Amino acid sequence: MKFVIDMMGGDSGIEATIGATKEFIKRHPNVELFLIGDLNALETFKNHNNIHLVESKTVLKMDVDPLTALKEKDSSLMVAIETYLANNCDCLISAGSTGALLSAAIFKIKRIPGITRPCLITSFPTIKKNKKFVVCDLGANNSNTKEELLQFAKMGSIYYSIVYQEENPKVYLLSNGTEEEKGSPVSKEAYPLLKDCKSINFKGNIEARDPLYGDIDVLVSDGYTGNIFLKSVEGTAKVMSKMIKDAFKKNVLTMIGYLFSKKGINEIKEKMDYKNVGGALLMGVNGVVIKAHGSSDVRSFLSALENGYKLVEVDIVNKFKKELA
Amino acid sequence: MKFVIDMMGGDSGIEATIGATKEFIKRHPNVELFLIGDLNALETFKNHNNIHLVESKTVLKMDVDPLTALKEKDSSLMVAIETYLANNCDCLISAGSTGALLSAAIFKIKRIPGITRPCLITSFPTIKKNKKFVVCDLGANNSNTKEELLQFAKMGSIYYSIVYQEENPKVYLLSNGTEEEKGSPVSKEAYPLLKDCKSINFKGNIEARDPLYGDIDVLVSDGYTGNIFLKSVEGTAKVMSKMIKDAFKKNVLTMIGYLFSKKGINEIKEKMDYKNVGGALLMGVNGVVIKAHGSSDVRSFLSALENGYKLVEVDIVNKFKKELA
Repeated sequence: MKFVIDMMGGDSGIEATIGATKEFIKRHPNVELFLIGDLNALETFKNHNNIHLVESKTVLKMDVDPLTALKEKDSSLMVAIETYLANNCDCLISAGSTGALLSAAIFKIKRIPGITRPCLITSFPTIKKNKKFVVCDLGANNSNTKEELLQFAKMGSIYYSIVYQEENPKVYLLSNGTEEEKGSPVSKEAYPLLKDCKSINFKGNIEARDPLYGDIDVLVSDGYTGNIFLKSVEGTAKVMSKMIKDAFKKNVLTMIGYLFSKKGINEIKEKMDYKNVGGALLMGVNGVVIKAHGSSDVRSFLSALENGYKLVEVDIVNKFKKELA
Repeated sequence: MKFVIDMMGGDSGIEATIGATKEFIKRHPNVELFLIGDLNALETFKNHNNIHLVESKTVLKMDVDPLTALKEKDSSLMVAIETYLANNCDCLISAGSTGALLSAAIFKIKRIPGITRPCLITSFPTIKKNKKFVVCDLGANNSNTKEELLQFAKMGSIYYSIVYQEENPKVYLLSNGTEEEKGSPVSKEAYPLLKDCKSINFKGNIEARDPLYGDIDVLVSDGYTGNIFLKSVEGTAKVMSKMIKDAFKKNVLTMIGYLFSKKGINEIKEKMDYKNVGGALLMGVNGVVIKAHGSSDVRSFLSALENGYKLVEVDIVNKFKKELA
């Protein structure tokens, strides 16, 4: 297995990607790594078995224009993409700009034939033990057509069935009401296409308050709304975890209370912490390209690496192509 | 103060509205109430000072078409609207269909001159003590133009300054990134209008994960995305509260832990429970029209009544008209 890691993208600096990479090597010593970045900063990996250091001179800004990004050949992202192609790698991971990663991946690694627009897809925790659902698109796109929503539904369905070995995943369309006639202009147009599509198990509209209960498998949305959903859930979970922490710190009695209940409470925090979510797969391009959280810390970037490992292991791209054919 | 209450709308049945109304009467014995509904079911209010019972024969379905709704003159909502107008009331509250309430209010109570599209607005809790922010539009509209987003920004700003006595509230636009060029097609168009508007204190874009930290006053969004935001936050908060409850129930030790920490934990649940949110004001129509949560229970409907009381007390409609002029 060959991984390319953009060590420089992301808001949290190279310490986060270095820390995560070190832990990843321990866990998976047989993976061959191409680490892209400032060679001085990466010196700690020198003379390491299975690791190639590749120099990049610049770092793309998070708000870079995608076309500008493509021209900046010395940037860590563009060097990563070229390294990926030159070495026939299995997985590319970056915490850099979503727009730049998306356009570089589409332009260089190319889309899988038949796919109009790739989407970002990842798993969400639910209240049920070990039950997750996936959401697509989480923000690779800014606005979408009904045909693109249909493709997202198919991609999400295939992703879920491969990753969770579920034959006939339940697909829902994110909406402002459960009735068929509810929705945004584009989701209303997409509804009949999803309903008529024989390759997915479409169950109708679902409101944003319900997916976390764990009764659905795939949540389909345009990229803009999917991004709002992702970040609303993430933000609320983070704020509530902080509130719980503060509530236990109040006085000696609450601290005693914490001692008795911390196991369960920490499990909740852990489960709902989006640092553990593992980045999102850019589904529809011809390779395993993972977008890690822009503000990835060690744990978060490590989850993205682990997610990439798992997706390469299940051979997601080839299985996806076979399903499409 | 004169209130009209649609006792029949809502999914939870008339028990919820009756329970809430009884408590509301205790708290505010001087408010004159017009209760609309099935007279047999409302018998408990018979011969009560300050209460008028008005019969309605049908109940609109939650998914009723707004035009059909307008024609169903015997429905509790349409009787409520006529009662409101005939008695020159101050406030109308319904937990029925949003679309029907919106179109009936616009058609019968009318918009305030200058307002193109009313919006649903309500307050959200934050991690900071006693600090709230408001969101508009929460779902009165399904898609909006840039000019409508500008009007929402103005309405939200005026609402916040009246309700929270804050002179220059900080207005943000909900977006998928903080940079100026981020956003949905319509929010990108709206950005320069908000930036150039001298009557609001526009601070730029904000991502959906950040408002709950309590540093903003007004969050502006198109109605569809605002509805997704509302329900994502609501759903996540509810699921996490349930998880916490379950964690404490695990065994004797965790139950002891709960005894020591329950005050703080219950405060969090209380704060983040959207049953306490109090319904949303349909801002921009010429009266205090409150949309209560469709699945309102006693507590939730009571919050909506209290919210209406507060908004009438601060004379929101006349103050809003003055600000607009």
